[in-house]
Amino acid sequence: MSKSFASDNWAGACPEVMNALIAVNNDYAAAYGNDDYTLQAQQEFKKLFGEETEVHFVYNGTAANVVALNSVIRSVNSVICADHAHINVDECGAFENMSGAKLVALPSVNGKLTPEIILAVVEADLFPHRNIPQVITITQATEVGTIYSVTEIKALADFAHKHNLLLHIDGARIANAIVSLQTDFKTMITDTGVDMLSFGGTKNGMMFGEAVVFLKPELASSFELHRKQGMQLHSKMRYIAAQFMGLLQNDIWKTNATHANEMAQYLAKRLEEFPEIRFSQKVESNGIWAVIPKHLAEKMQDAHFFYPWDESKNEYRLMCSWDTTKEEIDRFIDVVNH
Amino acid sequence: MSKSFASDNWAGACPEVMNALIAVNNDYAAAYGNDDYTLQAQQEFKKLFGEETEVHFVYNGTAANVVALNSVIRSVNSVICADHAHINVDECGAFENMSGAKLVALPSVNGKLTPEIILAVVEADLFPHRNIPQVITITQATEVGTIYSVTEIKALADFAHKHNLLLHIDGARIANAIVSLQTDFKTMITDTGVDMLSFGGTKNGMMFGEAVVFLKPELASSFELHRKQGMQLHSKMRYIAAQFMGLLQNDIWKTNATHANEMAQYLAKRLEEFPEIRFSQKVESNGIWAVIPKHLAEKMQDAHFFYPWDESKNEYRLMCSWDTTKEEIDRFIDVVNH
Amino acid sequence: MSKSFASDNWAGACPEVMNALIAVNNDYAAAYGNDDYTLQAQQEFKKLFGEETEVHFVYNGTAANVVALNSVIRSVNSVICADHAHINVDECGAFENMSGAKLVALPSVNGKLTPEIILAVVEADLFPHRNIPQVITITQATEVGTIYSVTEIKALADFAHKHNLLLHIDGARIANAIVSLQTDFKTMITDTGVDMLSFGGTKNGMMFGEAVVFLKPELASSFELHRKQGMQLHSKMRYIAAQFMGLLQNDIWKTNATHANEMAQYLAKRLEEFPEIRFSQKVESNGIWAVIPKHLAEKMQDAHFFYPWDESKNEYRLMCSWDTTKEEIDRFIDVVNH
Amino acid sequence: MSKSFASDNWAGACPEVMNALIAVNNDYAAAYGNDDYTLQAQQEFKKLFGEETEVHFVYNGTAANVVALNSVIRSVNSVICADHAHINVDECGAFENMSGAKLVALPSVNGKLTPEIILAVVEADLFPHRNIPQVITITQATEVGTIYSVTEIKALADFAHKHNLLLHIDGARIANAIVSLQTDFKTMITDTGVDMLSFGGTKNGMMFGEAVVFLKPELASSFELHRKQGMQLHSKMRYIAAQFMGLLQNDIWKTNATHANEMAQYLAKRLEEFPEIRFSQKVESNGIWAVIPKHLAEKMQDAHFFYPWDESKNEYRLMCSWDTTKEEIDRFIDVVNH
Repeated sequence: MSKSFASDNWAGACPEVMNALIAVNNDYAAAYGNDDYTLQAQQEFKKLFGEETEVHFVYNGTAANVVALNSVIRSVNSVICADHAHINVDECGAFENMSGAKLVALPSVNGKLTPEIILAVVEADLFPHRNIPQVITITQATEVGTIYSVTEIKALADFAHKHNLLLHIDGARIANAIVSLQTDFKTMITDTGVDMLSFGGTKNGMMFGEAVVFLKPELASSFELHRKQGMQLHSKMRYIAAQFMGLLQNDIWKTNATHANEMAQYLAKRLEEFPEIRFSQKVESNGIWAVIPKHLAEKMQDAHFFYPWDESKNEYRLMCSWDTTKEEIDRFIDVVNH
Repeated sequence: MSKSFASDNWAGACPEVMNALIAVNNDYAAAYGNDDYTLQAQQEFKKLFGEETEVHFVYNGTAANVVALNSVIRSVNSVICADHAHINVDECGAFENMSGAKLVALPSVNGKLTPEIILAVVEADLFPHRNIPQVITITQATEVGTIYSVTEIKALADFAHKHNLLLHIDGARIANAIVSLQTDFKTMITDTGVDMLSFGGTKNGMMFGEAVVFLKPELASSFELHRKQGMQLHSKMRYIAAQFMGLLQNDIWKTNATHANEMAQYLAKRLEEFPEIRFSQKVESNGIWAVIPKHLAEKMQDAHFFYPWDESKNEYRLMCSWDTTKEEIDRFIDVVNH
Repeated sequence: MSKSFASDNWAGACPEVMNALIAVNNDYAAAYGNDDYTLQAQQEFKKLFGEETEVHFVYNGTAANVVALNSVIRSVNSVICADHAHINVDECGAFENMSGAKLVALPSVNGKLTPEIILAVVEADLFPHRNIPQVITITQATEVGTIYSVTEIKALADFAHKHNLLLHIDGARIANAIVSLQTDFKTMITDTGVDMLSFGGTKNGMMFGEAVVFLKPELASSFELHRKQGMQLHSKMRYIAAQFMGLLQNDIWKTNATHANEMAQYLAKRLEEFPEIRFSQKVESNGIWAVIPKHLAEKMQDAHFFYPWDESKNEYRLMCSWDTTKEEIDRFIDVVNH
Repeated sequence: MSKSFASDNWAGACPEVMNALIAVNNDYAAAYGNDDYTLQAQQEFKKLFGEETEVHFVYNGTAANVVALNSVIRSVNSVICADHAHINVDECGAFENMSGAKLVALPSVNGKLTPEIILAVVEADLFPHRNIPQVITITQATEVGTIYSVTEIKALADFAHKHNLLLHIDGARIANAIVSLQTDFKTMITDTGVDMLSFGGTKNGMMFGEAVVFLKPELASSFELHRKQGMQLHSKMRYIAAQFMGLLQNDIWKTNATHANEMAQYLAKRLEEFPEIRFSQKVESNGIWAVIPKHLAEKMQDAHFFYPWDESKNEYRLMCSWDTTKEEIDRFIDVVNH
């Protein structure tokens, strides 16, 4: 299949990940994460986030979000999220079904929540008629490609803690956010006070697997039970661990994310050649949100497929990945121009 | 790590699976199963089970069981299983948590259920005070290594259908059962009237991934929604599909299972040299259940690790896998003998 | 305790209800609804809604809503409601916890939904990533005291059916709506095509108990199982049935609701004497929503307690009930005036 | 309807309960339990169980069990019960559906559990593959009319606490057990270390309503939220409270239970006149379990209805209630004798 701008999960696994898988295959390993590879991969995360970090692996991003959140709430709690949040609109109710708790979706601005937006929900005192908020979850980079600044994250973490809430980040594209802000995980996540992070692997070049990073290890006390109950405990765990070693060692995660972001910038620059195209979000990570006249969009989709985002507004999304190339973008623009 | 008899999921991926993964990696593929590899893998299953079959992939065996069952019941139903069933004792309540329904565990004989054991549960008329039974689930090979004959499966399927129930098989080790009985999937599964099968990949040489096989496609109508809700929809689906192609093409599944079963037979034969060892179950698939005096068992475990099964009876389980070798077994016996 | 405008559920049971309870107490009756009283009460509902109606009783309004909705959906479905809906903000996540499904709350206008508001949710095609909408639930009278016209209900029912959805009404105050529009149950509910109604008893003068009215009996096929599972099957069912007979015979429901609505009109008229008070919703049923300067509101609350509705706007709610009196209102106004 | 031995829930409400309901009806009362009657009723419980007790009311016995248990566990926990337990076989999976957790049903002896029966479940260490046991629940009097001695309860409580478990009692017929042993609530419940009790009202002469008694108030911290989520928060709470005042003041609960037990003894004595009848359980509370030849049983059921218990054994259950009379029993025996 030819390449496309459909999604960063249409790309394959990057060479370093594939090599890591091959490297751990000639051997026996204890099942369910009781193996040395898992331990080593967890050590790699500690290097990025600090020694206090506790890390566990699951199969996919939906599970990273749902199992992490479910492990720190009870059914009478609620989790606050943005209206566009993946957990609210793209996970087929996995959160509600697994937890029996409530998701409170609030209107977001450019995909982002702020303390001001959340305040009324947190202050309402309707015991025992309403679920008690327990966690705020935000997505970084957001579902529309924008990025919370470190200051914005810290403000949300402080707000959360002031109100006895936790802050969770859905980091399906956390690597793209880190390189976009030219910062590091300690600065953006650990030092701001984030409590839990779903660390995305698949969209950054892995074959399968995501990590749940607990910045406060006491929060992880029942995670392993909830992971098993959530059908997310991989028996041959070494294969998730190995991929993360391939990604984290030598900063491959950074190389991959930097490249994907640069390609998005390059694609945006080339799209600016079309005066009828209007960018509907700032291009801050590896995706482009743009309003494109329907006839032009269709011609573009024929050349190199991508998805509509909001058909009522002729808004489209074009995603770049770790293996998008400049040549591919140039060819795409060429085809559309003819 | 040196090899062991701990579990068939301590083994790695077999070469054909690894090669299949490498073969599909140089390319883009549509996400979520909308790719050609997934279609091809589904075709391979149709060759084994018949054209009517509908197949979907999930990450692991717990999910194959739970999502399959949940997709055909409502919370006011129950699922009937054996007391030792993996879904009852080894899946941390995943079934109850996902479905909100009830699991009715019945005493089994050598790990097996029979119509006689189930009859009273099915005949009880306690509407609306008791969950309505909807599915019988059995495990093939069972959790203690025994195997239902084709006749026994047909009897359970007929009984189920007579009482408006479905029959599901947890086939985490279905390949071992097929080769043990020297039969094929059509004969054992399709023609007996089995409704749904969890087809095990991981223990047969895959890296991750299991298949849910619907023999009556109308039963699959809502499976894809439940799979997504159960956090089991892999975005880069081609990588599960590819592994199954590696396993099903050229009957590698059969080669792997045959080898594992033969190694269990060979290990059993060598264990017979120890008069103090008593086999507690017939050796019919790739595992051995045996009562071993504690001092001997500990010496053995030091040589080549395996798990106790029921410590109160000094019963142990020794599992062979697709890559267990005769030399390894001989060395194990040698060490114990000295 | 002196009376108040706090809520219509602070009132007691009306005499006809109490007498009906006493009347059925000197006797044995089969448990769980298998008694003649239950049958008779169900007949009374058929007189109001038509012979096709199937009716079952539960303990309270939350249960009427949640069990009714849960009985016609699966966890991969969603139910569409207004943002202010009781089921969304005042039932502590009972819906999500019992069903494992998703509630999609949409912004309402004066507490009401319209086909236009709902259309985008229904048209979105995101299989299998998003719950499939199955029911629209509206509240009549709404949570802010407004009332859907018969035409508006019919439009929603037609819209629902066109999109393969059901229409459910939370009728905790359905009697107040019927008398406000000077219509009857057949016209507003049966003939418009409403599929299910939670028929409120408690706020209309009962001690406990609500009814779930299925206008299409085939929808009720599994309700009794879900009611039992929802812990809502009363063993001594005759006592709910008797209350409904007390309420429905001789149109006591209408007398009670008419009185409550008239008292709200009278109270509104007296409140108009205060120029600083602004009504924030039209007074259409038995409650008043009004913006009142804080110092005046506090004086009023001291005289005759009522609750704030939205403190950020100084908006308050004053409810009348079947036993509110003109004298009580006059005395309240007098006290405030001095 | 003529009386019967079908169930103690076929009887009506006793006069003291009815009078208590009438007494609280001429008044307003704050909703949701924030009223003086609720406070007074809670005080009555403190007199019986001790000042430390925290008490909350729900609608029925299923809810008392399920909401109480659910309020002290998480979904990864399990609750241990007897195979015959009401919560296991007669509540349509309400526990599993509300909690998402697992019920582990163990074989009982005469309806009772012992530490010996439970030990293996508690000692199994299968983290994270198996739900962690959190509560033992027993029924007093049991589902087959037998009664745990105070010593047996203390042994179970000590065992539970030694293993970090809680002990809950389903006391749908706790009053019958108390009078049978000629003891009191403090001795049987508080002093033995029981953690939570479902205190039955309906079968002891109430119209509706049960109490959940927390002997350790810290365990009640989230109960009110779970009660609301479980659809068990009555708005007009005074009517449950009043009934409990009617029952607890002047020891009416004791009068009612003593009478029911005595009638069971008298009925048993009269049944001994039939040599073909064999009692299958000791008559210790208000029910009789007996094996009766089918032709005789049918004649008896025609005279005065009662239910089969286990048809495969011709075992039947005959229940007496607070209003069963000697004359009724004599007439029953007379009819059968002719």
